[in-house]
Amino acid sequence: MKLEDVMRAREKAYKILKKAKIAVTPHEKDNIEVVDFGLNDLDHYGIEVVVYETNDRYCAKELALFPRQICPEHYHPAVDNANIGKQETFRCRWGEVYLYVKGEPTPKPKAIVPKGHEKYFTVWHEIILKPGDQYTLPPHNLHWFQAGDEGAVLSEFSSANIDEKDIWTNPKIKRIPTID
Amino acid sequence: MKLEDVMRAREKAYKILKKAKIAVTPHEKDNIEVVDFGLNDLDHYGIEVVVYETNDRYCAKELALFPRQICPEHYHPAVDNANIGKQETFRCRWGEVYLYVKGEPTPKPKAIVPKGHEKYFTVWHEIILKPGDQYTLPPHNLHWFQAGDEGAVLSEFSSANIDEKDIWTNPKIKRIPTID
Repeated sequence: MKLEDVMRAREKAYKILKKAKIAVTPHEKDNIEVVDFGLNDLDHYGIEVVVYETNDRYCAKELALFPRQICPEHYHPAVDNANIGKQETFRCRWGEVYLYVKGEPTPKPKAIVPKGHEKYFTVWHEIILKPGDQYTLPPHNLHWFQAGDEGAVLSEFSSANIDEKDIWTNPKIKRIPTID
Repeated sequence: MKLEDVMRAREKAYKILKKAKIAVTPHEKDNIEVVDFGLNDLDHYGIEVVVYETNDRYCAKELALFPRQICPEHYHPAVDNANIGKQETFRCRWGEVYLYVKGEPTPKPKAIVPKGHEKYFTVWHEIILKPGDQYTLPPHNLHWFQAGDEGAVLSEFSSANIDEKDIWTNPKIKRIPTID
């Protein structure tokens, strides 16, 4: 990503957080983590993250999602004896989120996946999260999600964050953003 | 507490959550945990809690506080080899919170403590939390907090919850509520 893309995405994410009435400090606003998964296509793939707290025991973040933005399919593996894999709870604060996990595929899912990318989405059991709804995902479970037409804000509460170890279905993905 | 007090406190807490634009489900609303610390004096002491997730790794809650309501002084001890004591992050979502921790006592603190109860408050280093502000408290640290004149909503993110083990400065306190 270019720095100007990051700046624009931060501004857009901030507007979504404001719509959702989520208070963030000016410092947090200026440091929203824009994650493009190395795909450089924020209109389709991305999350914009305010990390509230991350330490070796727990982690809490706010995720802003643009309309129809996708967090691609991945899972959180065990990394060593001390960490059996990240467990996480997603709570919808605003907007609508379509979350997909292992299980009976939902016949007419609400998500829309970019053409040609269908092979990177293998789990299709749909969970619809509206404001106040939440879902807790045990470690090792493939999942992905997409915001609805208005975008969304999702709180993530979890055990210690080890996102750099995540396993992605699309081999092109890099979780840690690089800025030119 | 009598059941009718609990019901009334739930309704009051729900109004505060609504003011703060925090979405909760009808089930969560009906199950708001009203904690009076065994003091049966919710006008002065109490927290009203929506537990979003609690498991053996992390915990996330929303705390609603009535105007000037106090969460009394306590700390989170180590309970066994596996748990070195609860670490927690408080994030103000709405209203104002006066948090007190160990350190240089603040000369003119904003908190107001009920007459005759001064002895149950021994740490007076003040941290003012407004919407978007947060503070992370390591284990074993005495702390207490009070909402400002409008009440407040505070998110709590933490390691595994072991509130039943908390050590309270006021020996009359019982953390687990009983309802007649």
